[in-house]
Amino acid sequence: MIKVGVVGGTGYTGAELLRLLASHSGVELRIITSRSEAGRPVGELFPGLRGVVNLNYSQPDADALSGCDVVFFATPNGIAMKEAPAIIKAGGRVIDLAADFRIQDVVEWAHWYGQEHASPDLVDQAVYGLPELNREQIPGAKLVANPGCYPTAVQLGFAPLLKEGQIKSQGLISDVKSGVSGAGRGAKVATLLCEASESFSAYSASGHRHLPEIEQGLRRMLPAGEPLDLTFVPHLTPMIRGIHVTLYADLVQDMSIEQIHHQYEMFYQDEAFVDVLPLGQHPSTRSVSGSNICRIGVFRPQNRGKVVIASAIDNLIKGAAGQAVQNMNLMFGYAEGEGLEQTALIP
Amino acid sequence: MIKVGVVGGTGYTGAELLRLLASHSGVELRIITSRSEAGRPVGELFPGLRGVVNLNYSQPDADALSGCDVVFFATPNGIAMKEAPAIIKAGGRVIDLAADFRIQDVVEWAHWYGQEHASPDLVDQAVYGLPELNREQIPGAKLVANPGCYPTAVQLGFAPLLKEGQIKSQGLISDVKSGVSGAGRGAKVATLLCEASESFSAYSASGHRHLPEIEQGLRRMLPAGEPLDLTFVPHLTPMIRGIHVTLYADLVQDMSIEQIHHQYEMFYQDEAFVDVLPLGQHPSTRSVSGSNICRIGVFRPQNRGKVVIASAIDNLIKGAAGQAVQNMNLMFGYAEGEGLEQTALIP
Amino acid sequence: MIKVGVVGGTGYTGAELLRLLASHSGVELRIITSRSEAGRPVGELFPGLRGVVNLNYSQPDADALSGCDVVFFATPNGIAMKEAPAIIKAGGRVIDLAADFRIQDVVEWAHWYGQEHASPDLVDQAVYGLPELNREQIPGAKLVANPGCYPTAVQLGFAPLLKEGQIKSQGLISDVKSGVSGAGRGAKVATLLCEASESFSAYSASGHRHLPEIEQGLRRMLPAGEPLDLTFVPHLTPMIRGIHVTLYADLVQDMSIEQIHHQYEMFYQDEAFVDVLPLGQHPSTRSVSGSNICRIGVFRPQNRGKVVIASAIDNLIKGAAGQAVQNMNLMFGYAEGEGLEQTALIP
Amino acid sequence: MIKVGVVGGTGYTGAELLRLLASHSGVELRIITSRSEAGRPVGELFPGLRGVVNLNYSQPDADALSGCDVVFFATPNGIAMKEAPAIIKAGGRVIDLAADFRIQDVVEWAHWYGQEHASPDLVDQAVYGLPELNREQIPGAKLVANPGCYPTAVQLGFAPLLKEGQIKSQGLISDVKSGVSGAGRGAKVATLLCEASESFSAYSASGHRHLPEIEQGLRRMLPAGEPLDLTFVPHLTPMIRGIHVTLYADLVQDMSIEQIHHQYEMFYQDEAFVDVLPLGQHPSTRSVSGSNICRIGVFRPQNRGKVVIASAIDNLIKGAAGQAVQNMNLMFGYAEGEGLEQTALIP
Repeated sequence: MIKVGVVGGTGYTGAELLRLLASHSGVELRIITSRSEAGRPVGELFPGLRGVVNLNYSQPDADALSGCDVVFFATPNGIAMKEAPAIIKAGGRVIDLAADFRIQDVVEWAHWYGQEHASPDLVDQAVYGLPELNREQIPGAKLVANPGCYPTAVQLGFAPLLKEGQIKSQGLISDVKSGVSGAGRGAKVATLLCEASESFSAYSASGHRHLPEIEQGLRRMLPAGEPLDLTFVPHLTPMIRGIHVTLYADLVQDMSIEQIHHQYEMFYQDEAFVDVLPLGQHPSTRSVSGSNICRIGVFRPQNRGKVVIASAIDNLIKGAAGQAVQNMNLMFGYAEGEGLEQTALIP
Repeated sequence: MIKVGVVGGTGYTGAELLRLLASHSGVELRIITSRSEAGRPVGELFPGLRGVVNLNYSQPDADALSGCDVVFFATPNGIAMKEAPAIIKAGGRVIDLAADFRIQDVVEWAHWYGQEHASPDLVDQAVYGLPELNREQIPGAKLVANPGCYPTAVQLGFAPLLKEGQIKSQGLISDVKSGVSGAGRGAKVATLLCEASESFSAYSASGHRHLPEIEQGLRRMLPAGEPLDLTFVPHLTPMIRGIHVTLYADLVQDMSIEQIHHQYEMFYQDEAFVDVLPLGQHPSTRSVSGSNICRIGVFRPQNRGKVVIASAIDNLIKGAAGQAVQNMNLMFGYAEGEGLEQTALIP
Repeated sequence: MIKVGVVGGTGYTGAELLRLLASHSGVELRIITSRSEAGRPVGELFPGLRGVVNLNYSQPDADALSGCDVVFFATPNGIAMKEAPAIIKAGGRVIDLAADFRIQDVVEWAHWYGQEHASPDLVDQAVYGLPELNREQIPGAKLVANPGCYPTAVQLGFAPLLKEGQIKSQGLISDVKSGVSGAGRGAKVATLLCEASESFSAYSASGHRHLPEIEQGLRRMLPAGEPLDLTFVPHLTPMIRGIHVTLYADLVQDMSIEQIHHQYEMFYQDEAFVDVLPLGQHPSTRSVSGSNICRIGVFRPQNRGKVVIASAIDNLIKGAAGQAVQNMNLMFGYAEGEGLEQTALIP
Repeated sequence: MIKVGVVGGTGYTGAELLRLLASHSGVELRIITSRSEAGRPVGELFPGLRGVVNLNYSQPDADALSGCDVVFFATPNGIAMKEAPAIIKAGGRVIDLAADFRIQDVVEWAHWYGQEHASPDLVDQAVYGLPELNREQIPGAKLVANPGCYPTAVQLGFAPLLKEGQIKSQGLISDVKSGVSGAGRGAKVATLLCEASESFSAYSASGHRHLPEIEQGLRRMLPAGEPLDLTFVPHLTPMIRGIHVTLYADLVQDMSIEQIHHQYEMFYQDEAFVDVLPLGQHPSTRSVSGSNICRIGVFRPQNRGKVVIASAIDNLIKGAAGQAVQNMNLMFGYAEGEGLEQTALIP
């Protein structure tokens, strides 16, 4: 049993983390902090957790957190970079579900997140926690940067072809669609049911924070110095959970769709959380909603030179809390899928 | 490990049953029948079950089913009454999720279901499987009639006051609202997204099949011969899962809302799957969606003579497949909550 | 052409009013005020009104408003009661879409709205603007209290039987369901898509502000002094627009459902905006969404003593802005349906 | 007043057409045919049209249709090509909302639509009815091929840059998203609320019938013989109405986003039904839902070489019935916007 703390347990990512940790056999959930809700039972804010998580929110307290084996930050960007150092110094380990440690270039980070980085030294030590692409680095990590939701789906989608040099690394396109829970639990007009349901639109088409994280991840799949560029356009989709990314790339040389599909099946054959669909099938977000699975389908329209990859995850699970638990399992020697057995809800 | 068969695994109730049984440690899922999909992998029809349920649908086969310890019928009404006898004769046990064995009066049954009952003798032996109200009869049952979704929510809502004679048994009102999954997975215009979303309406207001089942259940809570009548109006609600029932009754004598609330807390204090909310809180279907819980809130508007009870369940779980697994657990000596640990999805 | 001002045009009721007024041939829309959005084009806040309403929001200005023939208040409760007197004194007329002038008893008003009434004298002069029930008083009104959304649907539903003394005036039940737009455009967690979609729950079951307005309206249908009580439970429904009310009452003496239905058809035979459905049909909110129509169905379940009335409106149109335009038409001698020709969107 | 017939008035396109025609001052709606619903009042099938369209469905009758000035076909593909010739021979004019006359190459048509073309001669005479791109041909047309929903949004999106040769005509990408009403009113499992809501997926990624129509339209914008290819991936979006297309193209030479935006504003400056949004704004389907407007936003992410165009329409109006009425207006000399004044519903 490891002692676990959660900083920021009032958002959707935090709530999902609590739900998953509550069903994990190796976890003793010790502390759930929230400045705004301190003193209040978790089950009062989230009635679905009544009887499941029997803690009250507490004020963030450095000493208490330092007594945990691992602390999850499910906070807005800019918190973990200030509070993680003390926990790590005290011997704890940290998994940050925000963006503080995802981008290695702190100047780039500051540009996109509008603030100076408070712990540039720690950035170097942070391990990017996308197990399917860099599992070996995670067990030894003191600090894991849990990937963003879009970056998870996009990187898992491009990897099998990009790593093998079978698609061009320039002119990549990533047309991505997210359910509204990706925008968080904050009260905003734009995400009211009356605004966000029965409507569809792009947002941040001129530039979105997940672009540098994705380009950094994709570059790691290439020989050093090879140029890469990605056009990335996110859209808000009228549903609660789910991310669907549609990826477009140019084949370097002719490959049949059967060869492409085989490539994906081989690449992910040992992965419990990536499911390559049979040829011709399209992944739906429903089929992964409530689970830690990424489902992928591949297509070659009209047998022309473009390959199309469709990749679907639950943004709150494989795109956030589930992946964080997967990282914790790797860090502490649990079975990688412990606490992540839930199957997608149908319907 | 018990050997389990499922007859009719292509509807929503069947799929939910497969999902729950797949996570049950004491179950070996042997057979899933479907005439229309025989030969097809379950994971092809329900991609969310890929890698979870690795069986193919098969043609219904009496011999094979007779080799099971328990067979669930997740079929249309009128199938189980024909096929259950052979299974029971062969020593198997049956849990029927349809309506064939719910109503003791076979003439009444024939009136509402439009066909003669094929096994009137078995009706007497059938145990109505609502554990919170008649748990003691279930372990010994050969044949369990799994309650309907509305009847579960309504009976659990009225029981604490009705059994104690604290509300009048006449003039009861049950205004009930169901998500669209209650209408099944059959292709019908009325339940297309374009028809059923962004709209709300009543249906079958002049008379609905669940009325006799509910009245039968409520009468069992009364001294023999006491008159009872219920007005029952169902509504189709633009969401997938969830039933919310709003119940109205006249208090027999003055009771404060605190006394009423206390009555509910006491009545359900030992029940893992009924959660009486703190005074003043309203249950939402979200807080039970994906779980086997029934959440209940009680109100006395304006301190007048009417009591209002709000009761919410997931129609596919506590209202169908989850309750069926709960019954199976009682029948075979498993912990009552085995395989039913899932927490509601938030959000 | 009458000169029209709108105070508070940034909420959903205000936006709907702008949309309707823009299509009204006799209206010159002069002023749309908003403290928070002053200076901003209406079409920037509501892109759907680009090219339709070409005004900018302006700061509220008493002089400017006093130059209008009629001023609509689409403001929070408590504004119109302060600002209407000056407009009326200057010769303008006022239609208040908030609750300030709906309840004749100012003590009761203060109890439910948590503030003293600022213009108790005006309350007496205010005409309750539900044309189907008191059309003759509206043309001469200086000040119209536009009814609430629930009260409109409930009163139109009960009137035909209650006015004739054919149902008991005690023990009335009104189980009402509203789309989320009824909660307004303010940023609140409870009405985020992630909270309000795919869920259903009651709210304010212990007491809701619309109760006194409805009871006042129903009492006006009875001989003076006759007792009346209504139990009123509102529910939040996962859709944008629409109110569906389900009403329950006890028949005073036996009436066949055909007689009941005929009573409704006769009562509303000359009303353009009330549509009594053929016997056996249930009104859906879709069938009125986007229109000023109230559709009504009547039922007598099991031929017992309860009558059930289902009544559906678009809460933003017949329940707010459309009814306000209908009142304006009566006040200024336009055809009652001018500007209200829109048909429900299908699907 | 022109005499109008509608063949196939039971689908969503047909119902929308009835709704629009009913509000058109120059139209006398004479006949609405349906084999399956013959004899039934339109208002029974679509209660929202009660009191608005007071006709009964009738059996298709060649003579009766030949007495109309114009006949709309809102039928499945393959009907109009058989029935249009007789109407045209009798002096009537035809607007086909299906795909029968959209593709000039009948061999290509046969490939995608799985049947031989019944009237290849008429194909040559058919005018493609996208008024913003070929208005001058429409008034004289005997037969108008009303464009598909996706093709409308895609062609309007690409035209301003493609016609001027400012984007490359190869490597075009069109990632398109449609509400579920695009799949029609037929009862299919895939479009049940329980399947299609709360989920998102691509479909027909390997090839979709709208591709040849779009490529044909885009080629017409180029000098003869210039090569063009488009990758076209459609997605099913959990909402009723609306199409959003996201288009990607490579700039031929550097253009600032301001220049690109100016190009769009100039191109559509005289068009009532195309609205180019201010720089930086993203069109939402809500802002066009219920209206005949196409809203367009343009972007140049990271100031790199790709331009991104977002274009939104209501698939049933500008993508079908509204455009058909716009074509009728041009054919019969009515104001182009007659009957198309409806503003988008907010919210």
